[in-house]
Amino acid sequence: MKAEIVAIGTELLLGEIDDTNATYISRELTTIGMDVYLRHTVDDDLGRIVQVLGAAMRRSDVVVICGGLGPTPDDLTREAIAQVTNRALQSVVGAEDQLRQFFAQRHRTVTENNLKQCQVPRGGRLLDNPVGTAPGILVEHEGCTLVAVPGPPPEMREMMSNHVMPFLRSKLEERGDVPLFTRSLRLADIGESEAANELADILDQATDPAVALYASPGEVRIRIATKAASEAEANKKLGQIEQIIRQRLVEHVYSVDEETMEVAIGQALRAAGATLAVAESCTGGLIASRITDVPGSSRYFLNGYVTYNNESKQRLLGVPAAILEQHGAVSKECAQTMAEGARKDSGAGYAVAVTGIAGPDGGTPEKPVGRAYIAVADERGTICEQFDWPGTRTQFKQRVSQMALNLVRKRVLGLA
Amino acid sequence: MKAEIVAIGTELLLGEIDDTNATYISRELTTIGMDVYLRHTVDDDLGRIVQVLGAAMRRSDVVVICGGLGPTPDDLTREAIAQVTNRALQSVVGAEDQLRQFFAQRHRTVTENNLKQCQVPRGGRLLDNPVGTAPGILVEHEGCTLVAVPGPPPEMREMMSNHVMPFLRSKLEERGDVPLFTRSLRLADIGESEAANELADILDQATDPAVALYASPGEVRIRIATKAASEAEANKKLGQIEQIIRQRLVEHVYSVDEETMEVAIGQALRAAGATLAVAESCTGGLIASRITDVPGSSRYFLNGYVTYNNESKQRLLGVPAAILEQHGAVSKECAQTMAEGARKDSGAGYAVAVTGIAGPDGGTPEKPVGRAYIAVADERGTICEQFDWPGTRTQFKQRVSQMALNLVRKRVLGLA
Repeated sequence: MKAEIVAIGTELLLGEIDDTNATYISRELTTIGMDVYLRHTVDDDLGRIVQVLGAAMRRSDVVVICGGLGPTPDDLTREAIAQVTNRALQSVVGAEDQLRQFFAQRHRTVTENNLKQCQVPRGGRLLDNPVGTAPGILVEHEGCTLVAVPGPPPEMREMMSNHVMPFLRSKLEERGDVPLFTRSLRLADIGESEAANELADILDQATDPAVALYASPGEVRIRIATKAASEAEANKKLGQIEQIIRQRLVEHVYSVDEETMEVAIGQALRAAGATLAVAESCTGGLIASRITDVPGSSRYFLNGYVTYNNESKQRLLGVPAAILEQHGAVSKECAQTMAEGARKDSGAGYAVAVTGIAGPDGGTPEKPVGRAYIAVADERGTICEQFDWPGTRTQFKQRVSQMALNLVRKRVLGLA
Repeated sequence: MKAEIVAIGTELLLGEIDDTNATYISRELTTIGMDVYLRHTVDDDLGRIVQVLGAAMRRSDVVVICGGLGPTPDDLTREAIAQVTNRALQSVVGAEDQLRQFFAQRHRTVTENNLKQCQVPRGGRLLDNPVGTAPGILVEHEGCTLVAVPGPPPEMREMMSNHVMPFLRSKLEERGDVPLFTRSLRLADIGESEAANELADILDQATDPAVALYASPGEVRIRIATKAASEAEANKKLGQIEQIIRQRLVEHVYSVDEETMEVAIGQALRAAGATLAVAESCTGGLIASRITDVPGSSRYFLNGYVTYNNESKQRLLGVPAAILEQHGAVSKECAQTMAEGARKDSGAGYAVAVTGIAGPDGGTPEKPVGRAYIAVADERGTICEQFDWPGTRTQFKQRVSQMALNLVRKRVLGLA
């Protein structure tokens, strides 16, 4: 079943807010196996809204409209649906009573504009909105289902969950469509082309579950998807292919779906009953900040050292002056002694240290911008990896922090 | 001049990421006075991309395409532009050399797929991408300007600022359109309604320049805009109203346009020839990370202490055990001694310290989730502010870091 999304609102096109509603609705529709090929954003102009809706209805089985259901003159979704379906607007009496009650409870009076919100194109129905004043609209017209939900995110989400999704699920069932289930494996320390090489046969041959690679900001993901009659059946099929992929890329697959690296590392440390300290030069506190984004991180994270100048590397971490003189602050030797110093001073089981050249200045031919050394110290000793990736300063910090967290993860899990 | 935006990528329509690029591009185009009425998102399907581009080109003077310029087979923007303009793809030799060099620096080999990225539809030109592998494309076709920029946000932003916006500005000038000039004053530590009260008369009366308030995530901005024949004329008009607003809100206006708080603070410290150290508990390294996002920050930032547990507050910052016992780690007394300890240990002229309850757990009736204490120590003594703002853990960290940086800014500038 093909679905198209139309977001309405001049504020979106002025770039004043991110359209997180469109993301949410896309994900909801995709999750139950609908095909979302197109999404549009239109300003508050009746002619353009009607034009975009008309084209979407000709292409798709379902059109979900978000926004423009409020009481002000620039809320035009209701009128646009009436025009595009050529149906008159009619008041729904029960809805008017409900709206009057909503206002009375808040000691406010209903205006004529508000009552406009109780109108629906002939043959359509209103969708209840318990958390706001704007009811939704559902109209079936010439083989296409038009659904309109309000723009405020809590109202949109409530209505999607309680009205739109159950309705669409039953539509899919009626048509005998089997729902789609997906899982996304997140990879660290591997590029898209390298991952494609490792999985070449699977990517070529696997059709059910389907396996695809894609690069999301800063990382590569493997998306596996299957249509199945039940969640249990889907989990079995997805689990099997996940196992095979994990065996090939054991060092790289760090989590599934929305679980971040910092959450994965927290789980590894807690399972091992271990603690962590962090010593940062080029990432400037980003690694510690990411670790502490996780609720409960105080159970395994002890403290961090942001040793930006050489003097603090010596004073706080005990890096010998001789190392700084002979090898420089951006060196394997410095990273290793930083990690060892942080472990000793904090008393943590693991300590990770990074030093590098974030740029744009400070590079040399031997140590260019984008060079970093990442060291992890634990009771078994100290390991260190070199890393080269020029980019913007913030990209570099993000990538080095990801590599550093992944090296801790691998060390804790016995993979490095 | 009418502009339309086309975002390309199946991942957007699967709802896997928010399309922040579309927001950014909308804002940039609007800022110079272009009319953005429509935005579309299309999956990686050549037929649909060509269809959407064709319709957009018929309606608009400029079509900005974002994404689909990568090296994989599902990157189809280049082919789509070639089809819709009916022009053959041709390789640009200089670009190939540049790409080979980019890969060599990263110790990777160029593939045939990568070289595809150096092709451009006949008569078009490539836009340089210094931070990634995908150059952009600019083609003028039957009165419409087609511009394609890469999907990764840092690459997109770089290319928009350095290539696309200057080009579009000159287009507007050629057409004799009086360009719109805007300036956005960024405010800290004040809410939208409080700012509206302070500026009530200006917001009511000012028409040229127009003055409007808007809340962007985490802060309030004042947008002033005027149409003017030249940048000099615009700067004069905008500068006058900016002066009046700054006089009213001197403590709150911390910067203009895209200049962040961390850049503003860096300028203040450099102008004062001063240095800074940071001691963080609840922000977990975020303040230090933000400070070090600024190139050249090593000139004023010495080092940071992420003292997440009580023991490290004592060991690294010398917070007395008696303070932790009597007042707790989340207290004015603890914040002040943290700041004083950081200043003494680092030798910095200024030290800022934060301690608080990020949540979701750990709150009490006297010290609820969202409570923070922020202290700044310098040669004149130590000041401390209390802050209460419940929200998600990441919102809290962001807001506390902003408040802490603003308190440093005010202290350095003699405003606190």
